[in-house]
Amino acid sequence: MQERTELLYLKELGIDTNQEYVIFLRRDCPVCKSEGFIALNRIEVALGENKIIASLNIIENKTILQKGQAGLSQSAWKAVNAKEGDKIRLSHLQPVQSMHDVRSKIYENRLNESAFQRIINDIKNEKYSNIEIASFITACSGDHLNIEEIKSLTKAMIQAGSVIQWNKSVIVDKHCIGGLPGNRTTPIVVSIVAEAGLIIPKTSSRAITSPAGTADTMETVTNVNLDLATMKSVVEQEGGCMAWGGSIGLSPVDDILIRVERALEVDSVGQMIASVLSKKAAAGSTHVVIDIPVGKTAKIRSEEDAEKLKYYFTVVGKSVGLKVKVIISDGSQPIGRGIGPVLEIRDCISVLKNEPDAPRDLKERAILMAGYILEFSNVFKRQNGIQLAKDILESGKAWNKFQAICKAQGGFKDPKPAQFRYDVLSEKAGIISEIDNRRIAKIARLAGAPNSPAAGVYFSAPLGKRVQKDEVIYTIHSESLGELEYSSEYLKTQKNIIAIA
Amino acid sequence: MQERTELLYLKELGIDTNQEYVIFLRRDCPVCKSEGFIALNRIEVALGENKIIASLNIIENKTILQKGQAGLSQSAWKAVNAKEGDKIRLSHLQPVQSMHDVRSKIYENRLNESAFQRIINDIKNEKYSNIEIASFITACSGDHLNIEEIKSLTKAMIQAGSVIQWNKSVIVDKHCIGGLPGNRTTPIVVSIVAEAGLIIPKTSSRAITSPAGTADTMETVTNVNLDLATMKSVVEQEGGCMAWGGSIGLSPVDDILIRVERALEVDSVGQMIASVLSKKAAAGSTHVVIDIPVGKTAKIRSEEDAEKLKYYFTVVGKSVGLKVKVIISDGSQPIGRGIGPVLEIRDCISVLKNEPDAPRDLKERAILMAGYILEFSNVFKRQNGIQLAKDILESGKAWNKFQAICKAQGGFKDPKPAQFRYDVLSEKAGIISEIDNRRIAKIARLAGAPNSPAAGVYFSAPLGKRVQKDEVIYTIHSESLGELEYSSEYLKTQKNIIAIA
Repeated sequence: MQERTELLYLKELGIDTNQEYVIFLRRDCPVCKSEGFIALNRIEVALGENKIIASLNIIENKTILQKGQAGLSQSAWKAVNAKEGDKIRLSHLQPVQSMHDVRSKIYENRLNESAFQRIINDIKNEKYSNIEIASFITACSGDHLNIEEIKSLTKAMIQAGSVIQWNKSVIVDKHCIGGLPGNRTTPIVVSIVAEAGLIIPKTSSRAITSPAGTADTMETVTNVNLDLATMKSVVEQEGGCMAWGGSIGLSPVDDILIRVERALEVDSVGQMIASVLSKKAAAGSTHVVIDIPVGKTAKIRSEEDAEKLKYYFTVVGKSVGLKVKVIISDGSQPIGRGIGPVLEIRDCISVLKNEPDAPRDLKERAILMAGYILEFSNVFKRQNGIQLAKDILESGKAWNKFQAICKAQGGFKDPKPAQFRYDVLSEKAGIISEIDNRRIAKIARLAGAPNSPAAGVYFSAPLGKRVQKDEVIYTIHSESLGELEYSSEYLKTQKNIIAIA
Repeated sequence: MQERTELLYLKELGIDTNQEYVIFLRRDCPVCKSEGFIALNRIEVALGENKIIASLNIIENKTILQKGQAGLSQSAWKAVNAKEGDKIRLSHLQPVQSMHDVRSKIYENRLNESAFQRIINDIKNEKYSNIEIASFITACSGDHLNIEEIKSLTKAMIQAGSVIQWNKSVIVDKHCIGGLPGNRTTPIVVSIVAEAGLIIPKTSSRAITSPAGTADTMETVTNVNLDLATMKSVVEQEGGCMAWGGSIGLSPVDDILIRVERALEVDSVGQMIASVLSKKAAAGSTHVVIDIPVGKTAKIRSEEDAEKLKYYFTVVGKSVGLKVKVIISDGSQPIGRGIGPVLEIRDCISVLKNEPDAPRDLKERAILMAGYILEFSNVFKRQNGIQLAKDILESGKAWNKFQAICKAQGGFKDPKPAQFRYDVLSEKAGIISEIDNRRIAKIARLAGAPNSPAAGVYFSAPLGKRVQKDEVIYTIHSESLGELEYSSEYLKTQKNIIAIA
């Protein structure tokens, strides 16, 4: 055993397999032969005291790996703290015990809290391959988890991470379940709520399938890559922050699950609830307002589904000590005018600055969200929260607070607009009758958002608006001619993205 | 769009990701940036007319890929018929339509035949990533498929491949669902049945989790990598063959599903039925005998589960025009004495040669299987099949037929035994009361089987045998000292692999 494994030395290949640990071996390496390792096998890799489990890929090309060498994916390289030339030992993986629990779930048994803890801990410790995670997600999807199981999953996910401690009894937070382009209320809401004196340590995600996440949007004006210590000092100083959740690492398991879930495009209500609430609990929140936009082309398509989600969020939230208020909102069209990081932050700034042409729908929605937070946090219970939020916004204090938070995060910079534009014109005169959120978002993606932050769609035809033939209904923004061409060519294959009656 | 994609040229990396198509791109490549591709994304790769869908891995190491270069996994390289320096075009993948059907199944809806056809065709065309396949397998596992769905899945899998045509009305076949070490009746059964005049074009698999598959076992004495034309000519000449199924490529989809299923270790009754029967139908079989060993440490653990499988095999078989006879057999201990390719073929040869010390249990089971095939094929209905099988075996004609088939496949060679051995002794005197098939199989794997064909376990303590203290109960065979040490060290951590009462 020794004689074989001492032969393997690490070579840095720099292959990023997106989180999943992969080990690269030559087909003719003695360990591979004697152990009967085949591609897709799971192998235990030990470097000194550090042990990980990795999936095997075989490298045939003899110039990439020399005899006696092995490679690791970037994530695995980091996990065992590897240096070029380090020795590793390989062994067959004992089956992951908690996959028994997953199999039990596949057979439609109910899982209890300790079963979910075993699974979540094994996922946290990177013992699951992507296909095992996909199997777990599938087994929990659809309506396969009941409310007790969702509670258990949420608790297990909270226990797998750490919880930020604040020395205040009320910590507020907000979350939108997404799916509605331009619905970027966070910069405004955080500014109002923090200005009102509440603590709102907001962490946000980057876009994965949408044209912009709140983190992408805020990144166009300030630094969002805060570590935990910086985030805490920003919040202690200003009462709020707008940081990228990934840099804080509040819920490592959730990050792993989401990666596979998005690739699968399998929605799981139970996992969504657990994901959102575990992150809020980990951030130390006590009161959370959740926005569920409902519309034909939003993420949630019916009032009934929204009510079910509302029930789950409220009851599961309570079981983990969170007070949750759910707002079911209109998801029939984009919010504001900009779709894409720079275009969205410009809408927010325009609202914060009380500019006369600021998008009114964005302003109203932000005031509503902020107002609910102020009211239900019980700190301002004798006042009208919505009026208070409106006053703070219109006084200009929210704009000052926004700039102060940006400054605390590393400084405020003006977002840079895109240089290339393409106007999309109405094909006929009439009234805007329906808007396909999904395809509007897709055009913004094709134009380059969020990787090209100034790219996206500037939307100028809300529902009910009367337009003339050849009037501009939206404008595509791009940072390069190629991307502009790419998105405008997509339009040629599409009909009725914006329907005119 | 053109301007960006013309920049990518292929470089051969020689990375084998075991079937799944993977494309390797530099993080700084313009396509990666402008398209917002992230690792785990699925991308359409076009080389001339050839199009595939691949998962993205990002390569950070700038010496592996130069600017403007892209790499493909071995399978993807082959699929697009790539040459070093070929130009490729990349585009975002339109969502795979049939994943809607998979999602519908997750929501516990029933799928009809056309839904299964869409899924199976997309899997055949490599449109599914491993995690999507894992999701499909999970959604169909447990008891999630009813008998109608299993029929539909089986039909879809048959239609996705081609069916071998024979100009005979009766084509027989056998299959054992596996899980019982040493249960290697195929070489004997095929020899008897072909000698009796029936057509038995037997294809077998290689071991994945077991110490030996029939293909590995036959490979120790002859060539099993037959292409379809060679296989047909062997069968036309000798009435039977023993070929590796993988080289014939009868059921491409099944090979893909099995790969992920084994890695997941998720059993799916529905998929097992569809897998076995679609391969039999593709081989042109009309009559199939299926062996289901039942035992505490076999694959099927209860009589009840075996009866359910029997019902499924029979009814689904009928729906696709196969006459299926199921034998539920004793799976409480290994069959014969050898476990591992060479050790097993030596048992078979000993039975075929009618050597006085040939393992009687293997002989009896082979005669039973062959007898049933002879009887139920209706060709010998007036005779006692088991007596006929016994007569053929004991006359020496089966041994002649075995040699003739080997000769037709490329020649017979003597299997080479292992040079290293380790005797495991009884710890006390008593009667053998229980045998753990799984751990016996594991020891054989650790000793090197099936990659070292002579490695394995020679088993000498059947249930009920009275043994003395320090009597040899089994012997480990290895081709190297390292492997012998590896397997014997495992024993130190284990208790009661063979229980003595």
